[in-house]
Amino acid sequence: MMTVTRLDLNDATVMLAGARAKAAEIGVPMCIAITDDGGNLVAFERMDGGKVTSITIAIDKSFTASGAKKATHEYGAISQPEGPTHGINSAIGGRLMVVGGGLPVMVDGACVGGIGVSSGTPAQDMQVAQAGIDELMATL
Amino acid sequence: MMTVTRLDLNDATVMLAGARAKAAEIGVPMCIAITDDGGNLVAFERMDGGKVTSITIAIDKSFTASGAKKATHEYGAISQPEGPTHGINSAIGGRLMVVGGGLPVMVDGACVGGIGVSSGTPAQDMQVAQAGIDELMATL
Amino acid sequence: MMTVTRLDLNDATVMLAGARAKAAEIGVPMCIAITDDGGNLVAFERMDGGKVTSITIAIDKSFTASGAKKATHEYGAISQPEGPTHGINSAIGGRLMVVGGGLPVMVDGACVGGIGVSSGTPAQDMQVAQAGIDELMATL
Amino acid sequence: MMTVTRLDLNDATVMLAGARAKAAEIGVPMCIAITDDGGNLVAFERMDGGKVTSITIAIDKSFTASGAKKATHEYGAISQPEGPTHGINSAIGGRLMVVGGGLPVMVDGACVGGIGVSSGTPAQDMQVAQAGIDELMATL
Repeated sequence: MMTVTRLDLNDATVMLAGARAKAAEIGVPMCIAITDDGGNLVAFERMDGGKVTSITIAIDKSFTASGAKKATHEYGAISQPEGPTHGINSAIGGRLMVVGGGLPVMVDGACVGGIGVSSGTPAQDMQVAQAGIDELMATL
Repeated sequence: MMTVTRLDLNDATVMLAGARAKAAEIGVPMCIAITDDGGNLVAFERMDGGKVTSITIAIDKSFTASGAKKATHEYGAISQPEGPTHGINSAIGGRLMVVGGGLPVMVDGACVGGIGVSSGTPAQDMQVAQAGIDELMATL
Repeated sequence: MMTVTRLDLNDATVMLAGARAKAAEIGVPMCIAITDDGGNLVAFERMDGGKVTSITIAIDKSFTASGAKKATHEYGAISQPEGPTHGINSAIGGRLMVVGGGLPVMVDGACVGGIGVSSGTPAQDMQVAQAGIDELMATL
Repeated sequence: MMTVTRLDLNDATVMLAGARAKAAEIGVPMCIAITDDGGNLVAFERMDGGKVTSITIAIDKSFTASGAKKATHEYGAISQPEGPTHGINSAIGGRLMVVGGGLPVMVDGACVGGIGVSSGTPAQDMQVAQAGIDELMATL
């Protein structure tokens, strides 16, 4: 048996609040998803005006980041033409996201879950995702 | 052109709170999903202990109820052998749910969204979904 | 944060051995899958002669049992016509299995994973799945 | 009629052991999948710490290598922009993997199966996959 630590709903609620506040601050309504260490959805919010297409994208960014323990923009960097993972974006039925906005949540060196944000530019999505993590870290 | 009225994130948050309180009261941690009139996810929560399999089931119950403007248990009743919609459960890649726990949200005769609940018995799921709607109605 | 206990690869290997031995004893080559508490695959074996169609079925039986914390034959019993979950078998893209052969692995009241077996009759699949659990329990 | 030679479960177990030992040696816990000449899964292991997203990726790398009788990194080379198979990565619902780590198992000029590895860099995945094949070849 192994024992692991993962995000619970309270953690996810804290993260949503932090991400939502940053999204409001920059004026971009977002879809925000939180997954646990197994890649399974814990909480999700589509802010008023968030994109319909971003529902699945946000969830899959979080799935990718938590399941692979890697930020989605890092996959983007190594998935360019001639890059080592070029073409990985269509893996897992297209769920493997290589666009920025998905971040793993690392605590004491272990991945306890992830956050995925979509509706803005990838840079904005990453900023909002980071704000969600920052909010959680401030509570630990 | 047409103008429609639909659930916003604030409404969804109110519904989640009502459903979560009822789930806590009956002692069954639930997955709870809220969709708008287009069947698109607005908010989702998996309470600590909610089932992993219920993530998709809750979302799809809400999708079905809001998209079809019909409670999923009503589909269940007419989907029995010899019933008029027998076999419809596998439609839309299996997203058409005929198990109780998905309710449309009706306001002034119009469907403004839906709620889907899963992890308990269908009767428990329906009770928790109704509590989410009741909470919203109390605010209107 | 929450702390959870789950099957590791060593546990899965023990379970495979127990299930494989029982399958050999009854003379039915099986597909055997082990998932963790998040429904994610840990280990899989198709014994020589196991059915090709049973690969996915075994994996999905284990996914269902571990994700829903419920044996798949229990879903079968309540999914008969007029039963409360009639029609649930097509949920989650058809991954929700209601045919016997998927069992949750419960330790100290918590679901730590699951086992799914397919290629025999459901009764044989259940027997082999139970043998996998028994083998694990003998090591705890 | 034709008679084919293919990997059996014993071969797959040997390959898993060889791959697992190499993964341990380089310190990267891996997902390892073995498929037969029909592309059908024979055995799978997710080592403790292997990535959740790599479950499907490892299986699909092996599926691709055995089904196409070609290493996935070879597909990667010809799938670059302007390459002859550019865009083939999304084929078969995204199962056609063009990232390194999937190798066909060739015996006497015939493809008898494949191995797919994921969780490390593609170079590490390829190294571990080759170790699985080397272990098998040492037994023939």
